[in-house]
Amino acid sequence: MCVPAPPGQIPFAIDFPRPAWLSSRSSALPALTRNGRRARSKTSMKPVPFLTDKRALTIRQEFGTPAFVYDQQTLQRQARLVLGFPNAFGLTARYAMKACPTSAVLKVFTDAGLHIDASSGYEVERALRAGVSPERIQLTAQELPANLPALIGRGVLFNACSVAQIHVFGARFPGRPLSIRINPGLGSGHSNRTNVGGPSASFGIWHAHLPEAVAAGHKYGLRFTRLHTHIGSGSDPKVWERVALMSLQTCTRLPDVTVLNLGGGYKIGRVSGEETTDLQKIGCRVLKAFRSFAKRHGRRLRLEVEPGSYLVASAGALITTVVDVVDTGRRGYSFLKLDAGMTEILRPSMYGAQHPIEVVPAAKGRRPRREYVIVGHCCESGDVLTPAPGRPEALGPRLLPETRIGDLVVIGGAGAYCSSMAAKNYNSFPEAPEVMILKNGSIKLIRKRQLLDQIVQNEA
Amino acid sequence: MCVPAPPGQIPFAIDFPRPAWLSSRSSALPALTRNGRRARSKTSMKPVPFLTDKRALTIRQEFGTPAFVYDQQTLQRQARLVLGFPNAFGLTARYAMKACPTSAVLKVFTDAGLHIDASSGYEVERALRAGVSPERIQLTAQELPANLPALIGRGVLFNACSVAQIHVFGARFPGRPLSIRINPGLGSGHSNRTNVGGPSASFGIWHAHLPEAVAAGHKYGLRFTRLHTHIGSGSDPKVWERVALMSLQTCTRLPDVTVLNLGGGYKIGRVSGEETTDLQKIGCRVLKAFRSFAKRHGRRLRLEVEPGSYLVASAGALITTVVDVVDTGRRGYSFLKLDAGMTEILRPSMYGAQHPIEVVPAAKGRRPRREYVIVGHCCESGDVLTPAPGRPEALGPRLLPETRIGDLVVIGGAGAYCSSMAAKNYNSFPEAPEVMILKNGSIKLIRKRQLLDQIVQNEA
Repeated sequence: MCVPAPPGQIPFAIDFPRPAWLSSRSSALPALTRNGRRARSKTSMKPVPFLTDKRALTIRQEFGTPAFVYDQQTLQRQARLVLGFPNAFGLTARYAMKACPTSAVLKVFTDAGLHIDASSGYEVERALRAGVSPERIQLTAQELPANLPALIGRGVLFNACSVAQIHVFGARFPGRPLSIRINPGLGSGHSNRTNVGGPSASFGIWHAHLPEAVAAGHKYGLRFTRLHTHIGSGSDPKVWERVALMSLQTCTRLPDVTVLNLGGGYKIGRVSGEETTDLQKIGCRVLKAFRSFAKRHGRRLRLEVEPGSYLVASAGALITTVVDVVDTGRRGYSFLKLDAGMTEILRPSMYGAQHPIEVVPAAKGRRPRREYVIVGHCCESGDVLTPAPGRPEALGPRLLPETRIGDLVVIGGAGAYCSSMAAKNYNSFPEAPEVMILKNGSIKLIRKRQLLDQIVQNEA
Repeated sequence: MCVPAPPGQIPFAIDFPRPAWLSSRSSALPALTRNGRRARSKTSMKPVPFLTDKRALTIRQEFGTPAFVYDQQTLQRQARLVLGFPNAFGLTARYAMKACPTSAVLKVFTDAGLHIDASSGYEVERALRAGVSPERIQLTAQELPANLPALIGRGVLFNACSVAQIHVFGARFPGRPLSIRINPGLGSGHSNRTNVGGPSASFGIWHAHLPEAVAAGHKYGLRFTRLHTHIGSGSDPKVWERVALMSLQTCTRLPDVTVLNLGGGYKIGRVSGEETTDLQKIGCRVLKAFRSFAKRHGRRLRLEVEPGSYLVASAGALITTVVDVVDTGRRGYSFLKLDAGMTEILRPSMYGAQHPIEVVPAAKGRRPRREYVIVGHCCESGDVLTPAPGRPEALGPRLLPETRIGDLVVIGGAGAYCSSMAAKNYNSFPEAPEVMILKNGSIKLIRKRQLLDQIVQNEA
């Protein structure tokens, strides 16, 4: 049987002599990108403030690696920050659960007062199973679930993202109130690939097609009581103000709207140099826009926001073990190979995303710092955890203490879009377990490690 | 319950009037990349020669969409081509099972005479469960499994990919024969991200470190009887000849080597303009190199090859249903939204890979051709199935017959690294089923659709 390492045991971390080429080489390896240009080495912030070395080692001892760890207190702190988003006439904050849909995480957030943004019928079902009440869940989906009427029948809110979706809803629920999602024609993603507004995004009804949406609504006697205009990741208060103003302008054409949902996409800085969105700064401008709209039009709109990363990214980490250290000569790279990779964290491979990385040495003693490229355990050249920032095709070595097989490596900022958006089961590796550090300091297993039996259980 | 559409039923493909903006617009939408430059529209080859429209519709009727379909005859044909690789003194061909590890696919290949290249202990275990005999499986892994000694004890072959792996093997199995993987310092990937040789690749022992490998071997009395020098995807006979010559040169320093494994990475052209490797052309040069080595050194080396994509890419397709058609105005794009996406096919989002795409209209009649960007069902802007070639951040619209909700869309070239390397369960979508068209024409379910119950079964 192919089984994960027993708790506390690192497979094959046997004592063998360090090859000469490893111990004799200078710590100042040239840092080149794959196309030969020098890459700037990234110095990490304290990657995971909630995780002491001792606790990380305890988690490895008890649950093996790789393992995701979430911190209840950080989740609760982020929820409070979001619930403090400035607002003129009331706020509903929804957790974009696609960021991390594990029921224990949903429970922390809903207990804290957050509602849920679900991206598929399956997500709605998971939220319901986690105990979220239907009226606190809103479905905003590219693909409608087969059981949409049943979900709506139970009280789940629905946000129509296309004219076709309005027709589907209207035919079944004529005369009802409805939310619609508009693409205001403006995007704010940190790269083209994270832009969910503007002409290159398929999300929502293109702003110029609003008349068709209104006509569809009329046909079934629908009232558009809620408007949704999520445009993606961004930190610039001016952009948010502009979107708020554009969205409020749309509200003047939709007289029944009482709730305006500006979505999420607030940035969370994972490594030094990356910005974290100041919700107060953004919210302040949004608040003013809502107030001024109320003055002019006599309509006091409720605000909705829908963060994912902002709520959970900094509250999660991946604990891994170094399984090999290799290099490609003096003019090449030194590589750390982990017992995790794109099977747990796909963002670096896909978007060139940067995660803070910290080494917890298995043995004590001062170690010189060296530059390492960190790669995953898959036989896939794209399985790189330290690409150059925003350039997944290039390597971005990190300066770390000299690292050995068996050392523990903590990858921070891994709460959002890691466990939920990975190349799961590639090379037949099982889904990693998830644990949560509870407020009282105890560590709780919230998802067990997958078994190979489960990976193949649907095969004939 | 959130369930897939019942067989033969398309959820919500109700009859509603086509919005004016859809029917009135010209078919000649401007094809712009996201940064504003014009993109060349890609004309597809017949995407899936083994799949008639009727059969595709039958599969949807019976199994729902999305569904992977593999063709037994195509798998067998590709196996024959690989087994016909020119060789001077014998050939072993291994299927790189990470490309598609489903047991029914493994069985077709092993029945055809192929051996197995496994990338993890879990893959070894899957191959054993599929009935492959241990001595036909070789493990070449970045991460060693905890049960490596047990696997080797059963007869599984092991290919050491680092000096540390030699130490691990030697300490446990002194005096045994062993295969080692060398990085010859040369890569041939079609992009930096598919290069598994050269200084930016962590795979294998860097050629300059061969003395350390030999010293480790001596320490445990190991004999290096097999050499492995896989360098990645490539079609150029000259590159293969060069790698063969470099590898044979290494063999002169390893007197016990009797088998030389040159790996795989043969290209398979998925869309027109993409090259398919001519194995005869490549093999011919390799054969000559082996013969000339034998003449000079009196050693008749056996050849091993290890293709993945070449064997299975063209034998698989993904059958999907169009769930929405939207656009972003005259200066924007038309989008087809499918009930599949990066949850089934990640290669376009990750590498800008091109797959042939064909529409099977639900209703008959002539339709004008239009340009469409095809996107997946995830709430993720990166979930694009038609990126610009090699540029996942840009859009690459395709010229297709005017397409409507409910039409079936077939994505070809989806046999390799699709079902096995996807963002499985993102947005909580279940793993798609897999079917195989058997030689006798019947269709067999080889993997059932996953249930939500299974997705959450390990949660506390």
